[in-house]
Amino acid sequence: MLTDLEIARAAEEKAQSIIELAEKLGLPTQELEPYGYNKAKVKPAALKESSNKGKLVLVTAVSPTPAGEGKTTTSVGLADAINARGTSAALSLREPSMGPVFGIKGGAAGGGYAQVIPMEDINLAFTGDFPAIAAANNLLAALIDNHLHQGNELRIDARQIWWRRVMDMNDRALRQITVGQGGPLNGFLREDGFDIVSASEIMAIVCLASDFSDLKERLGNIVIGLNLDKQPVTARELGAVGAMAVILKDVMKPNLVQTLEGNPAFVHGGPFANIAHGCSSLVATRAALSVADVAITEAGFGADLGAEKFFDILCRQGDLKPEVTVLVATIRSIKYQAGVPVKELNNPAPEKLAEGIVNINRHLENLKDVFGTRVVVALNRFPSDTDEEVATVQQLLDCPVVPATHFAEGSQGALELADAVLGLLAEPAPEVSFAYDLADDYQQKAKQVAQRVYHADSVSFAPSALRRLKQIEEAGYTGLPICVAKTQYSFSTDPKALGAPEGHELQIRQVRLSAGAGFVVLVAGDMMTMPGLSAKPAALGMDIDDEGVISGLS
Amino acid sequence: MLTDLEIARAAEEKAQSIIELAEKLGLPTQELEPYGYNKAKVKPAALKESSNKGKLVLVTAVSPTPAGEGKTTTSVGLADAINARGTSAALSLREPSMGPVFGIKGGAAGGGYAQVIPMEDINLAFTGDFPAIAAANNLLAALIDNHLHQGNELRIDARQIWWRRVMDMNDRALRQITVGQGGPLNGFLREDGFDIVSASEIMAIVCLASDFSDLKERLGNIVIGLNLDKQPVTARELGAVGAMAVILKDVMKPNLVQTLEGNPAFVHGGPFANIAHGCSSLVATRAALSVADVAITEAGFGADLGAEKFFDILCRQGDLKPEVTVLVATIRSIKYQAGVPVKELNNPAPEKLAEGIVNINRHLENLKDVFGTRVVVALNRFPSDTDEEVATVQQLLDCPVVPATHFAEGSQGALELADAVLGLLAEPAPEVSFAYDLADDYQQKAKQVAQRVYHADSVSFAPSALRRLKQIEEAGYTGLPICVAKTQYSFSTDPKALGAPEGHELQIRQVRLSAGAGFVVLVAGDMMTMPGLSAKPAALGMDIDDEGVISGLS
Repeated sequence: MLTDLEIARAAEEKAQSIIELAEKLGLPTQELEPYGYNKAKVKPAALKESSNKGKLVLVTAVSPTPAGEGKTTTSVGLADAINARGTSAALSLREPSMGPVFGIKGGAAGGGYAQVIPMEDINLAFTGDFPAIAAANNLLAALIDNHLHQGNELRIDARQIWWRRVMDMNDRALRQITVGQGGPLNGFLREDGFDIVSASEIMAIVCLASDFSDLKERLGNIVIGLNLDKQPVTARELGAVGAMAVILKDVMKPNLVQTLEGNPAFVHGGPFANIAHGCSSLVATRAALSVADVAITEAGFGADLGAEKFFDILCRQGDLKPEVTVLVATIRSIKYQAGVPVKELNNPAPEKLAEGIVNINRHLENLKDVFGTRVVVALNRFPSDTDEEVATVQQLLDCPVVPATHFAEGSQGALELADAVLGLLAEPAPEVSFAYDLADDYQQKAKQVAQRVYHADSVSFAPSALRRLKQIEEAGYTGLPICVAKTQYSFSTDPKALGAPEGHELQIRQVRLSAGAGFVVLVAGDMMTMPGLSAKPAALGMDIDDEGVISGLS
Repeated sequence: MLTDLEIARAAEEKAQSIIELAEKLGLPTQELEPYGYNKAKVKPAALKESSNKGKLVLVTAVSPTPAGEGKTTTSVGLADAINARGTSAALSLREPSMGPVFGIKGGAAGGGYAQVIPMEDINLAFTGDFPAIAAANNLLAALIDNHLHQGNELRIDARQIWWRRVMDMNDRALRQITVGQGGPLNGFLREDGFDIVSASEIMAIVCLASDFSDLKERLGNIVIGLNLDKQPVTARELGAVGAMAVILKDVMKPNLVQTLEGNPAFVHGGPFANIAHGCSSLVATRAALSVADVAITEAGFGADLGAEKFFDILCRQGDLKPEVTVLVATIRSIKYQAGVPVKELNNPAPEKLAEGIVNINRHLENLKDVFGTRVVVALNRFPSDTDEEVATVQQLLDCPVVPATHFAEGSQGALELADAVLGLLAEPAPEVSFAYDLADDYQQKAKQVAQRVYHADSVSFAPSALRRLKQIEEAGYTGLPICVAKTQYSFSTDPKALGAPEGHELQIRQVRLSAGAGFVVLVAGDMMTMPGLSAKPAALGMDIDDEGVISGLS
């Protein structure tokens, strides 16, 4: 089989221009801002008039193997297959972060015959959203240090500055740094650090804001740290909002590209799925809903993290009503949940499936019981999967299980999946429900998520986390949803506790207020907000020739 | 008078699309990559066939006041006026750095009625060149620290890493930092720092490379520091070139925009004028030469720095043959050189002009005698200049002195200047000459520039600078041009030594090898490669409304 890049490049050569696609979608081309011939930003005015005509489908996954289960490829394959069946479907997907492209991960625009193009551009700087978010983030950081340097009128406590700098790079050396060295001309010495851009609160804000006005309001709400009276200091008080918004002037316009099969994809926003909610932007999802009968979006990590936040944070705030959830599973993931080592996952082991299936059942149960959604299991087939294994999984599960081969076959490999989804969409959807009530206090919210979604027995808070929660509540930040940062490999906080663990404790070590994004982050376990490069980073295998042909980007 | 932004916005509303402009220029539109409707990158193929049909004009300036003398506005006004006279002219200008836009400087796309548009975009992320250069620079930095972390096969001496990180922000806190804190998982602890993106060697490389292949060669030549045997380690040895080139895949395509009057401007590349050569890219200047009869470009700071490097580095390497030099002066600058304090520069003082004129004469003499170029002095008029002052300057100087009011009047204010330039261009141009021979050793080169251009008596090197020079020569890096980093306010290294100082000593404190860019930097005096924000940064006065209308960007 060809590489992802070869497949993408061949499709790019014969693809329709983005203007042609926009015209098909009925978008007024004067409201389009083309970036080259194959990508465009869409101004809000183009989308305002057509309200949400489409029905929303969420794609989420079981607890993943380290390689991931193929949420993006399944989303793309499903969209192409629904279009192939004659119903219009559009995607709302996350923008890949460039940093990991040079690490181990490679690209993140789908794969095989289920990709969005132009693949190289999407994986690199694309339309400049990440650089703009980085610049806005770092302008705020520079204004904070400048404020300290120029007299510190707001009495910011230099020991309690929460706002970090960001860079779209896997760079472990920047995780923990000291700035302001070299004497008084260089400002005050203090400890700081860089996160990757996806982890910037501004990324979460861009993804949750409903329009530019809301973006500015949220930028102003950002709490950068505490003053010497232990009171929160906001970006608004620093006077930073206008300039940050100037930098972000184009960032709220969703990016329109297309699948290999020429169907529309809004690829916009890429927040972390641990310290943020991990979904593409609200404006992109609304854009998809406005141009097609079916809009498909995905949520990061497994359903315990991604789907939970999709419902409890994004749907609640953005008034989205998903009608069907596609739970992506693989035979490999079921074996992995049964304890099969990673390097043996491609070996047939039908006898292990009954043991690993408990993970899928737990996710199914959550999606149905907690969030009230209808579920189709998409079994993303790998060449190593045997027919016996697939049949076993279908027997073991008490819901529609549809094998899909879109990676190798494009839309033709996902027609059955499309039919299953379209079948459910033809019937009235149940009301969506949530894991907790926004009026609950934060400890109650954590308890609800821990017990109902993670199936833990209890929640504990480190003393410093409790103190921070109290401080946040006393400062008036109540009623926000929570955003739990936890390992994606287990329902518990122990990445090795596979299957469907019970009786565990959710230990919250740290609490962070994201007042601009509008949630409180509860950190359980280690949290990596700046990845590193491996011993053999992908960067070392990349090249581009004089004709601009890239190699080594997968 | 309207603000720069108001003038720009009014013009933008009725401007031709960039496709229309390209068609007028005879550029095949399929070789254009539009970014929105008003800016485009031009692929090299579009420019390859038409060789340099135009004649080149350099715009440089006298020793500046802190506010600058208006090189960019004069370049724009001259281009518009030449076009108004019926001869085609195109600009090659530097891209503004975003960092200073939020500091004190405001925008840098010309001003008044002599601007390039879209002004806001050009001053912000534009077509993504600066973010791409930052990412390539920082990927190399991450690969260096990762190499140390993963076993240090190349035996890089962590105490001798010269490659710094960059950010397009005025952020003094990042000038000197410690990275790798927090234990072994975060790499090795070492001192580091951030420069502004314009100061990245990659920026200089982009501006000097003749094509993509040359870019890659130069990226490979970058020396990141020394190994434990005191031998240079290159980016090529680190395996970083391919991935850096992938990030920079679009950066060699010059950006096409237009003046307020609809004439073409290639705005591309923005290297520092101290540790680099301070000119827009070679490919942009070649592009301007290929589409018009007259190409106009500018060189940073005063002529002692900008023009010297333009001739000795860029023209020599790029085989450019400028035919006329426009030396921009202001009545204000002449008074300033006579010792008038900055806040009194707008008061009439004709009696001071004879004293300050020595600075212009020194620049004139250098341009003619050292570089063999013909010169027109453009007297960029301010409203406060009296007719008596202008007449006095014309009497005092022994060359054409043409007052110009393009800031207030656009092309109509620079017609006389255009006529003077066109008059000279109609006659055969003398051969360009250089300040030194490339075969000289670095100390001889420094002596030539010091004596012939700065009119110093002597050159001295700090012992560490001499050691570094010896090291560089022993490693085989000989025959490169030098790039002196010196104050722009004086011919000497003392910014307070105004006029035409003599008898001074050029003291070289530090030597840096820029093997990728292809020059050796000799640092005389303090050098600021990361600006800071002021007590009242421009950022605090900026805003953008829900319709995208920006205010406070000047």
